[in-house]
Amino acid sequence: MFEDRIQEMTKAELDREREVAGGLAQATRGLIDAVIRSTVDEDEMLAVRAEIEALAARLRVSQIPGAFGVVHTQDGTVRGHGNAAVGLRNAVAPPLDIRWEEDGRVWADVHLGAAYEGPPGLVHGGVSALILDQLLGEAAAAGGAPGMTGTLTVRYRRGTPLGDLHLESKTEKIDGYKSFVRGSISDAKGVTVEAEGIFVLPRWAREKMAERPTRFE
Amino acid sequence: MFEDRIQEMTKAELDREREVAGGLAQATRGLIDAVIRSTVDEDEMLAVRAEIEALAARLRVSQIPGAFGVVHTQDGTVRGHGNAAVGLRNAVAPPLDIRWEEDGRVWADVHLGAAYEGPPGLVHGGVSALILDQLLGEAAAAGGAPGMTGTLTVRYRRGTPLGDLHLESKTEKIDGYKSFVRGSISDAKGVTVEAEGIFVLPRWAREKMAERPTRFE
Repeated sequence: MFEDRIQEMTKAELDREREVAGGLAQATRGLIDAVIRSTVDEDEMLAVRAEIEALAARLRVSQIPGAFGVVHTQDGTVRGHGNAAVGLRNAVAPPLDIRWEEDGRVWADVHLGAAYEGPPGLVHGGVSALILDQLLGEAAAAGGAPGMTGTLTVRYRRGTPLGDLHLESKTEKIDGYKSFVRGSISDAKGVTVEAEGIFVLPRWAREKMAERPTRFE
Repeated sequence: MFEDRIQEMTKAELDREREVAGGLAQATRGLIDAVIRSTVDEDEMLAVRAEIEALAARLRVSQIPGAFGVVHTQDGTVRGHGNAAVGLRNAVAPPLDIRWEEDGRVWADVHLGAAYEGPPGLVHGGVSALILDQLLGEAAAAGGAPGMTGTLTVRYRRGTPLGDLHLESKTEKIDGYKSFVRGSISDAKGVTVEAEGIFVLPRWAREKMAERPTRFE
């Protein structure tokens, strides 16, 4: 576990990775949306499918053996470009661009389209939970006690419409290696979903962090 | 809300949709994985990106105006092919193939790859929550009282490794329009994540269902 790759990237290399690999993932997000909504005929779908498979094969000519994991950069930042909520290389992720404020508050604005639907026209309840898990986890880190999720409780006040949403979270209390965090998702009319989470830093991660100063990104 | 499209599909048409549109989404899942893991050079990534954008444009020549919503078929079944957890057309979804047993138990086996990563080598805690929300929601329906998620509480016992996982859930109690449901995710060594959920059928959905008998799929 935690078999991370050490890759010393400069700021310029990282910007380029964001543009090139990030752009590739962004194009793939567009494709995901088009696949859900397309009404072209069967022959065209079959033809496009064959081309998608050929493109994937081109990308696989050279690839890492497993999942992305994390990459360390020179300043000690850990980059999870494959992360399912925030990974710039992962087309499953919206991706969330979570901002950290000086006072420990974290927030993001996000647009969720057809790929995140549950009930008709509404964000899937599980997608809300996915987003809140990441958001609250970052609030735990921003509050000074990063950790893995111990317990996450999500309360659905009303349906969350697909479209533009605002996310916000903050650590409420720290008790040793445990952070108690709250956060929410809002649409233009107010809060739709609230969550509270307990985040815990396991021993193996504490030992790992002692070896190498870390800031997750 | 709940502006669903009525499309009377025969069994043969549905099988074909599963094969053609489902196959297109499956190819897109492969592409998502390849984009995360590829180490081909920049020029090749830029070239592939342009081709992905061209394929999306071909699919968009004819498309529905918004998210997929649900489609009703002749037997009253509601099909959410765009659903973020189980939708056969949605490449964000693994997709889960959740089986319903006679006794109300629901279960699924699923393989989660690089696209579902959180901490290195582990399933994102939010992805576990997404999967459990869908699973417990179906257990509520299988137990006789379908609903939308009211509260979901997820407890992480240990890290869930990427790979082959087993999901299981059952309704524990029904109280009017509320279902109380439990479920879990397991790897080969046992349970990694547990969840309990309260699912509630809102009034608007009860009225809708009274108009038209419904089984969600």
